[in-house]
Amino acid sequence: MIEKPAESALLTDLYELTMLQAYFARQMNATAVFELFMRKLPDNRHFLMAAGLEQAIDYLTTLRFDEVELAWLRTCGRFDHAFIDSLRDFRFTGEVDAMPEGTVFFANEPILRITAPLREAQFVESRLMNLMHLQTLVASKAARCVLAAPGKRLIDFGLRRAHGAEAGLLSARASYIAGFDGTATTLAAPRFGIPVFGTMAHSFVQVHDSENAAFAAYARVFPDNTTLLIDTYDTSIAARHVVALAHELETEGRSIIAVRIDSGDLAATARSVRRTLDDGGCQKISIVASGNLDEYALRQLALDEAPIDAFGVGTRMNTSADAPYLDCAYKIEEYAGQPKRKLSPGKETWPGRKQVFRIFDTSGKIAGDTLALEGDRFPGEPLLKPVMHAGKLLQPLPSLDEIRSHVRQQLASLPAALQSLDAAPPFQATVSASLQELAQKIDSQMAAYAHARNT
Amino acid sequence: MIEKPAESALLTDLYELTMLQAYFARQMNATAVFELFMRKLPDNRHFLMAAGLEQAIDYLTTLRFDEVELAWLRTCGRFDHAFIDSLRDFRFTGEVDAMPEGTVFFANEPILRITAPLREAQFVESRLMNLMHLQTLVASKAARCVLAAPGKRLIDFGLRRAHGAEAGLLSARASYIAGFDGTATTLAAPRFGIPVFGTMAHSFVQVHDSENAAFAAYARVFPDNTTLLIDTYDTSIAARHVVALAHELETEGRSIIAVRIDSGDLAATARSVRRTLDDGGCQKISIVASGNLDEYALRQLALDEAPIDAFGVGTRMNTSADAPYLDCAYKIEEYAGQPKRKLSPGKETWPGRKQVFRIFDTSGKIAGDTLALEGDRFPGEPLLKPVMHAGKLLQPLPSLDEIRSHVRQQLASLPAALQSLDAAPPFQATVSASLQELAQKIDSQMAAYAHARNT
Repeated sequence: MIEKPAESALLTDLYELTMLQAYFARQMNATAVFELFMRKLPDNRHFLMAAGLEQAIDYLTTLRFDEVELAWLRTCGRFDHAFIDSLRDFRFTGEVDAMPEGTVFFANEPILRITAPLREAQFVESRLMNLMHLQTLVASKAARCVLAAPGKRLIDFGLRRAHGAEAGLLSARASYIAGFDGTATTLAAPRFGIPVFGTMAHSFVQVHDSENAAFAAYARVFPDNTTLLIDTYDTSIAARHVVALAHELETEGRSIIAVRIDSGDLAATARSVRRTLDDGGCQKISIVASGNLDEYALRQLALDEAPIDAFGVGTRMNTSADAPYLDCAYKIEEYAGQPKRKLSPGKETWPGRKQVFRIFDTSGKIAGDTLALEGDRFPGEPLLKPVMHAGKLLQPLPSLDEIRSHVRQQLASLPAALQSLDAAPPFQATVSASLQELAQKIDSQMAAYAHARNT
Repeated sequence: MIEKPAESALLTDLYELTMLQAYFARQMNATAVFELFMRKLPDNRHFLMAAGLEQAIDYLTTLRFDEVELAWLRTCGRFDHAFIDSLRDFRFTGEVDAMPEGTVFFANEPILRITAPLREAQFVESRLMNLMHLQTLVASKAARCVLAAPGKRLIDFGLRRAHGAEAGLLSARASYIAGFDGTATTLAAPRFGIPVFGTMAHSFVQVHDSENAAFAAYARVFPDNTTLLIDTYDTSIAARHVVALAHELETEGRSIIAVRIDSGDLAATARSVRRTLDDGGCQKISIVASGNLDEYALRQLALDEAPIDAFGVGTRMNTSADAPYLDCAYKIEEYAGQPKRKLSPGKETWPGRKQVFRIFDTSGKIAGDTLALEGDRFPGEPLLKPVMHAGKLLQPLPSLDEIRSHVRQQLASLPAALQSLDAAPPFQATVSASLQELAQKIDSQMAAYAHARNT
């Protein structure tokens, strides 16, 4: 029994190990360059947001096979023992270049480049993709929610239907990066320092003799931090109870911060609750809404001017429900100094070590990206930055606060059409002439090779 | 820094802890009954398959707060110290009743029932849902793939785009339960004894001087277990190379087991490759296909009689892409002997401790389910079985082989309309008269209560 899937070197596709064994047997280990990118954006996305680099780096720096894992490899009957022994000292010793977390990017733009001895660069494929795909997916979805609800507080409520433990925890991180204000997932506080928020469940109301009794009990246990869930039975009755309780608590020097509604027509309910609270002199009690929210629902509530101050956004954000995966690839672009290109139909790659250069217009909006070879000189900002050298971090990774500030600048740099939830002409990086020439050169070589083999 | 999200008691919604503190302060801890069920099925699902019970039980039996977690709770400033101290001995001591893993079920049918002191039954909500939702989601999707590809081998290829480490590992388990033949996720072998399969990546071909050289190298490193990926450049040329290599290897007493195609028109490519292999005397080499597969693609390939023997099914299965979440709920149904009902619009629950009785027609197909109170006596099989008593497992959980055999019987018991991928009239459990009466009784009480408070 090997515990802790996230920390096991065996959390990888078996073919990574079979390929490594073949490379070991053939003593192949020259420098390889792999790039991680998205072949295309989902139909409902105008941009994506790079996220997950911190966890990717953590994986690369801690990757090793422990004795239990090596023992299993010995007993499974697939690998030779000299190869397994070589894995005892297997470490990542390469270079990493990457877009900083929170950077917006588009189809075919590498967000991570690994330059390392072949076996290392190959082996890390499965888990690097697993980590980068998840957080990029969630941050991209969460950023849309942030754009759809300007001025509102957004809280991640999605642990229960996130796909497992790691998805729950890392989607709290990814949504916080993207501009959420916090999460309900407790572990995100000690692990990442993310603000955590909690109210009560319907069951809390239900186990008390009356809703009133439940509210009073909760308010007295958390005198400075009370949010009451008011839709267990009848929201309008509950709102009146809240007013009465608020005045009662006032005499004790206590207050109710907010009420939460979690069902029904949120805009209509919020308006009615707001009126009841205001009429009762409780203008300071804010309204939190949750239930099936995503960027489309948030936009509609904004258009309806629903008097809601904060939103709990769960399932549809954490699972990126309208686009629950990205067409993510990790492909070899160079080996032993030779650029490489995959020609599989629909899955062709741009060869060589690449860089993305971004230019901005005078108002600071993105004016164009160029996908170019690393050595090319283009105007604009090169988006891939050096992160690791010889297996070591070059400088500390940015804090979540620094990433969030980068995200604000990135979202502001998106042209209005790309910020919107409506259809927009796709934004595509221009491919540099040098890169097109290199691709054509490889195609000609491959065609000549095929012709020679074929005749 | 608290590592291992899957094993931390803090992997929970903050409100579980705030509610517990309130229950502690008020000394409320009578027996509560919670049930886990799906409010409705996604549009594209005619049935769901219960999965994840083993991990749920593992969570319940190992749940505890360690000193690092208790220390964080002390410093976070939200909880009082007497309450935090009480968490040191917090254990799950209750009862679990559940549908065996692999059981097919429908809307509103509880698949898990927790009967325990209120604080325990409440606290476990977030992680129980997180675990049961994930595997039920994936098993339900995988079962559809199994039904769509009779007689074919199916392998889970989805780690890289599964939502994190636990989703990768547990979707290997969930799909294996549902009838897949194995997974590419290595860790699933030592952890669960699931057969693992691996071929090679395109990069393996690309780092060799020629595709031919790559094939020969791989075949000689894995003489008894060679599957060659043939779509890196030109599949028809590669298929001819495979024939030549197979004859060469034959003289050494070795063989090639299979070729894999991963792009293009899989049916047309498979037919062309099959012809080349057969014409070359390689009838025994089988064909594995992968790339954007799901139950719809598998059904089309079956209709096209594509000569494909095995499929690698990844992203769309692991993320349940057409329905990436279920409308999963964990609701209180009884507290201190009193049945409970939530009335929130669209989220009403059926009160009381419930059981599902299933009857079959003479051909062994499901003829009807009845959602009833536990004490009711109905013909048919009660689907919820006792699993834990007083925090202890009543008998060992079934092995994966036993679950797989249960699944075969369960899928065979589905009427043809529910097995199909086409539209079908929704299957709904009948609600027993006793349960309807109980719900009405609670509604009347609540209405009287509301009236009394309102006037």
